[in-house]
Amino acid sequence: MTLRSPNADAHDQGLERAFAILHATFPEIRMPIQSICTSLARTLGRRTKYRINAASLALFIASRIATAQAQDVSLDTMTLLAWVERAPGVWSAQIGDVDSTDLASFAAAEPKREALGAMNSSPIPFANGLSRGSMVAGRAVAHLPLGEDERLYGFGLQFRGMNRRGSVHHLRVDHYGDVQGRTHAPVPFYVSSEGYGVFFNTARFISVYPGIGNRRDSANLPPIRDRNTDSQWAARPQSDAVEASVVGPGLEVFIFAGPTSLDAIRRYNLYFGGGALPPRWGLGFWHRVPTNAPADAIRDEVAQFAAQDFPLDVIGLEPGWQSKSYPGTFDWNSKNFPEPASFISDMSAKGIRVNLWENPYISPESSMYRAMLPHTGSHMVWLGVVPDYTLEVSRKILQDHHDKTHLAIGVSGYKIDEVDGIDEWLWPDHAAFPSGTSAEIMRQTYGLQLQQTLHAMFRERNQRTYSLVRGSNGASSGYPFVLYSDYYDHRGFVTALVNSGFSGVLWTPEIRSARTKEEWVRRMQTVCLSHLAQLNAWASGTKPWSMPEVNDAIRAAMHLRMQLIPYLYTAFAEYHFEGTPPIRSVTLEQGFPVSGDTMKLAETEFMIGYGLIAAPMFGKETSRKVAFPKGEWYNFFTGEIVSNGESIETVHAELDEIPLFARGGAIIPLAAYAPNVAAMNTATEFEMRIYGSGPATGRLYWDDGETLGYERGEYGWYRATAIPSDETIRPSIITEKPFGRDLPSAQWRFMSR
Amino acid sequence: MTLRSPNADAHDQGLERAFAILHATFPEIRMPIQSICTSLARTLGRRTKYRINAASLALFIASRIATAQAQDVSLDTMTLLAWVERAPGVWSAQIGDVDSTDLASFAAAEPKREALGAMNSSPIPFANGLSRGSMVAGRAVAHLPLGEDERLYGFGLQFRGMNRRGSVHHLRVDHYGDVQGRTHAPVPFYVSSEGYGVFFNTARFISVYPGIGNRRDSANLPPIRDRNTDSQWAARPQSDAVEASVVGPGLEVFIFAGPTSLDAIRRYNLYFGGGALPPRWGLGFWHRVPTNAPADAIRDEVAQFAAQDFPLDVIGLEPGWQSKSYPGTFDWNSKNFPEPASFISDMSAKGIRVNLWENPYISPESSMYRAMLPHTGSHMVWLGVVPDYTLEVSRKILQDHHDKTHLAIGVSGYKIDEVDGIDEWLWPDHAAFPSGTSAEIMRQTYGLQLQQTLHAMFRERNQRTYSLVRGSNGASSGYPFVLYSDYYDHRGFVTALVNSGFSGVLWTPEIRSARTKEEWVRRMQTVCLSHLAQLNAWASGTKPWSMPEVNDAIRAAMHLRMQLIPYLYTAFAEYHFEGTPPIRSVTLEQGFPVSGDTMKLAETEFMIGYGLIAAPMFGKETSRKVAFPKGEWYNFFTGEIVSNGESIETVHAELDEIPLFARGGAIIPLAAYAPNVAAMNTATEFEMRIYGSGPATGRLYWDDGETLGYERGEYGWYRATAIPSDETIRPSIITEKPFGRDLPSAQWRFMSR
Repeated sequence: MTLRSPNADAHDQGLERAFAILHATFPEIRMPIQSICTSLARTLGRRTKYRINAASLALFIASRIATAQAQDVSLDTMTLLAWVERAPGVWSAQIGDVDSTDLASFAAAEPKREALGAMNSSPIPFANGLSRGSMVAGRAVAHLPLGEDERLYGFGLQFRGMNRRGSVHHLRVDHYGDVQGRTHAPVPFYVSSEGYGVFFNTARFISVYPGIGNRRDSANLPPIRDRNTDSQWAARPQSDAVEASVVGPGLEVFIFAGPTSLDAIRRYNLYFGGGALPPRWGLGFWHRVPTNAPADAIRDEVAQFAAQDFPLDVIGLEPGWQSKSYPGTFDWNSKNFPEPASFISDMSAKGIRVNLWENPYISPESSMYRAMLPHTGSHMVWLGVVPDYTLEVSRKILQDHHDKTHLAIGVSGYKIDEVDGIDEWLWPDHAAFPSGTSAEIMRQTYGLQLQQTLHAMFRERNQRTYSLVRGSNGASSGYPFVLYSDYYDHRGFVTALVNSGFSGVLWTPEIRSARTKEEWVRRMQTVCLSHLAQLNAWASGTKPWSMPEVNDAIRAAMHLRMQLIPYLYTAFAEYHFEGTPPIRSVTLEQGFPVSGDTMKLAETEFMIGYGLIAAPMFGKETSRKVAFPKGEWYNFFTGEIVSNGESIETVHAELDEIPLFARGGAIIPLAAYAPNVAAMNTATEFEMRIYGSGPATGRLYWDDGETLGYERGEYGWYRATAIPSDETIRPSIITEKPFGRDLPSAQWRFMSR
Repeated sequence: MTLRSPNADAHDQGLERAFAILHATFPEIRMPIQSICTSLARTLGRRTKYRINAASLALFIASRIATAQAQDVSLDTMTLLAWVERAPGVWSAQIGDVDSTDLASFAAAEPKREALGAMNSSPIPFANGLSRGSMVAGRAVAHLPLGEDERLYGFGLQFRGMNRRGSVHHLRVDHYGDVQGRTHAPVPFYVSSEGYGVFFNTARFISVYPGIGNRRDSANLPPIRDRNTDSQWAARPQSDAVEASVVGPGLEVFIFAGPTSLDAIRRYNLYFGGGALPPRWGLGFWHRVPTNAPADAIRDEVAQFAAQDFPLDVIGLEPGWQSKSYPGTFDWNSKNFPEPASFISDMSAKGIRVNLWENPYISPESSMYRAMLPHTGSHMVWLGVVPDYTLEVSRKILQDHHDKTHLAIGVSGYKIDEVDGIDEWLWPDHAAFPSGTSAEIMRQTYGLQLQQTLHAMFRERNQRTYSLVRGSNGASSGYPFVLYSDYYDHRGFVTALVNSGFSGVLWTPEIRSARTKEEWVRRMQTVCLSHLAQLNAWASGTKPWSMPEVNDAIRAAMHLRMQLIPYLYTAFAEYHFEGTPPIRSVTLEQGFPVSGDTMKLAETEFMIGYGLIAAPMFGKETSRKVAFPKGEWYNFFTGEIVSNGESIETVHAELDEIPLFARGGAIIPLAAYAPNVAAMNTATEFEMRIYGSGPATGRLYWDDGETLGYERGEYGWYRATAIPSDETIRPSIITEKPFGRDLPSAQWRFMSR
């Protein structure tokens, strides 16, 4: 028994308080506790060298009692997680009781077990005893180990930075507005630079503390420093764990093995059904018309695309197609669209698809209203009722209405707006829904509910859609819905594109308008290298030709987009069948050099498919730095070598040039330019661009481009090979998996000879 | 039975799905449900004019089943709140089971029932049946009625805007950084322009939806408008309720009656013990020294105040007074302060008090560490342990240490830093604490815990403190702790000052540094008219004389502060005994003209005590607009009339002038200038400034200025009266409640003659 603490000789003033604690603790003792302590202190005092008085003794005993009664808060009290293998390289563990509605229940398809099994095997990444879980004050808490040098990526559609270590993320579906954790798709998945991924399978608001928050009994605490005198003092001392929690009965955690970080992402995507494979037309150019544009004006606008040699695959109708909006009727506006069926069929005849904007809150003037009303929540959004789409009956009302009035006349997809936030626009966190689903889970999954409902409707017709949605969440890789946002910072748009690849979501850094011609061109170049190339002119009324002095540069970017379609489509097939994100961070490449500089650059450059790196320019820049992974990298357009590995290079690009680089040894298939995919489908020749002087290879995926046939095996895989340095060996295309139709013939182009 | 909905003739594709629902619902029916429906549809079809087929019938039945099974989400399902009177004009109602730790449990004192009883009586503001509560999906929800034109103020220390209606507030104690709802003191109290207040007595994170979020079955819905065609369309349609919720077992709600809005605030303050009465020296000038300043440097700095004729009452020591900091030891740094006792006693001899900075996270090198360790939480802050101050034993360890090593040698108070946020700095939301208190409740009350612990310690010595704290919450009016922040926008600082008065918190819009001399002077002028006049130079190292070219203007503001002390002290006495905030919004004045312009202006002007309005200037302004309430208002310095009621006036003020206005009919007591309160206490004359030409009156409160004697009746109230227009009647001071000592004599000054 040691009584050296400064309170050991606590002055008499504290005596009464300490005795009060003891009296309250031992009400059965009738003798004054003060007397007991005084006497005991005297006895003890004679036997030690320390000053002991009744007060200090009372305090000591009171403190020990409090400790004994107190909850043990050490890490040891957390239970070891019991990992169960769910699929090859995929494990899960459960803390408490999990919800019936979790994110995994929204997955678009069953796990691709065969593809998972075909990957390199990798062990469970955490040593025994290092991952733990517990219930604390109504929260389910997970504790996972983290190495000193690990970097963590993910948490969905993030617009700033890449490495999420060291910041707290309160993940909540919301309109992005610079508030950390709140974004359109706050996917609770992260991937480590050490080659594994972790998914928190919950549809609740979840708070994640990646490498931040030091436990008192951590085995790996950083040194304590004096802020006053030590310049190494850290405001956020590094922690040795990722901790996460939800308020609720429990939490399920998934681990996705590597061996590489990209493998972990692939497993995540494959486990939730494989990535989305859009219809080929979805990769063409999209244009959204002004919100109130009537059919005739749109016909004129469409004609201008052809007249001015700009491609167009999809025309997007905005709120004015509905008889009323905000809240919407989902019924055609007979003034703007007196004959919607003939309008769509005229578009279709030109090879152009029609996409409809909507938000899912229903006006009393909608023909769906009476049927839907009983299945809606306690609160409204813009005075429209909020259907509970966790109910089969609600989904069916929406599907039946849309199938009959939209799909039946040829609508190709939707732009689902306003399923994200802001808090003031959506239902409150305490709203009630007829299924009993909490407002919180509704908020986190409403975008998923819409994707699920509409996706199923198109599938019924053996038809693919490519659509837009403004809110999503985890386990959604399989949905052919692309995220968008009102956030309009160009750099942030590109960083979101980079980050989307960490979380199994798709993103369009759409173009709307620009203050300068430089910005206009640079934005167009970016969006033409993204998941969905769209001019979202609903409010701006801009057209591709709105700044005539840069029409050529704008046209070049759009034409390039069209030519890249075979390559992009192949990248999406790799997403679907192999889980590899079509657009992703360069840091996922083996041999990417890690430093402060390269990691910062990596926030604004990205891989496209297996062999391209894009590095968008911003504003009036005509040069920028690009960080290159291992290997040789060539200027995509000229075939000149730019990097021979793990370097930072300054690259120049005039306004009409896009910094785009091809991997040495890659063969990139391009289509001959066509104004839309319908025209491209009848093309007879691909250009196969070969980069570098060594053996080169490339892939090509092909199918009908529109139906679900690919799910039934109706597709082909082709491999192009060439050895530029050996002209005796002719380049060739090998059919790895045959598809019924003939491929266009190949025109070989040696870019680096 | 009506089958007119558009899905009534749902096409066959939906048939199977509807039948699946029916089959799942009635598993006991062996006969194919399809046959039943087909047959039934045929029968029904013959009897109605509507087309009925098996599919539509199945869907209709399925929909009715879903509705019958569904939770009723209407407002009717919420229980009527049962209001119980707690004190005159104060009612509470309970939803579910409330927590043992709520905000009210931290109140500094018992309700001032006598003062509450002495107020004008007012009925409960809500009609029967309009206030409701319920438990929804683990949340306790309150629903309170709201009139169409009501404006709502409050929710604590808010830096932007005043009327909080129409925005969602997720109230969380945090460092303010422009994230709505997160602030140093997110007090869950609001006051309505209709003259009542509402307090949500919870220590949990609470989400409040004031006038935002329309219920489907609201009786007062605004009209639905088409966003496309109607310019009146509102993104946030007005709602007829305030709703609020916490995740937890329940929620207690308080109502404070008026009849005026100011009365409701007064009742709130009185119910939670009355406002804080600082020691008189707390109203003098405070100066904080650079973080590592040693005692000798501080002596020099203090000497400069006297030499340059700047007042100084309190010197604040920053982290360098501790042997280590972040985490702190709370033990003296023997290098900087070899003899702390003599340093403090030297200061005391000059009439200067010493205030100590600390944050409450304990370094292993602290002499308190070993005793405290068992009573700390699972996680650390800057690698210091986090005491669980809900435990008596923890409080006692801190009190004993501080009393012995600080108070015993004369420390006058503390600046309690870092009890607010950011998330990355504090413990995670899932941290565990030995008392079993949740991390959430710890977060919301940690600032309160420290105020409670330290306040009690000073009280034990029959001594008042005036201290600083960076985190607080509701029910805290009685604590003599002033909030501060790193947020440094001057306008935001002033708006926070205005808003502090709605929520029973005190705030210093401290001055640190400035980019221009104009900003330096204007900031000094503002802080000298606030709850605590402090130059917080811990990092900047600035002194009042740091911009010599404006020394005179700076000195003038500081001298004015000193002269205002009798008036300010009286204003605080009115806060303590009557609940009236010493600084508060001009909108609380009867007859304040409400318009868009005046409400905007009111964000940057404020009442001080019973008779002054201050309207700070910003940046290089030399004029601004000021909105005046009813009555005559005079230039405080010149006595010239500025407004004769409910007007907006443009006022001019050169850099050395402060726009300060006195109410016509007010008598404002000023002290003769003294460099600190110790010197002022020996002064023999007050200047009584009389404004206007009609009968004038003013109050003066006086007591010993330092002890708790005022709680035992040892104080005096005096009333000054004058009739400037009738020179036959001499001004006089009437003793309304006598105090043992003589007041200084009065020098009358007729400002408007």
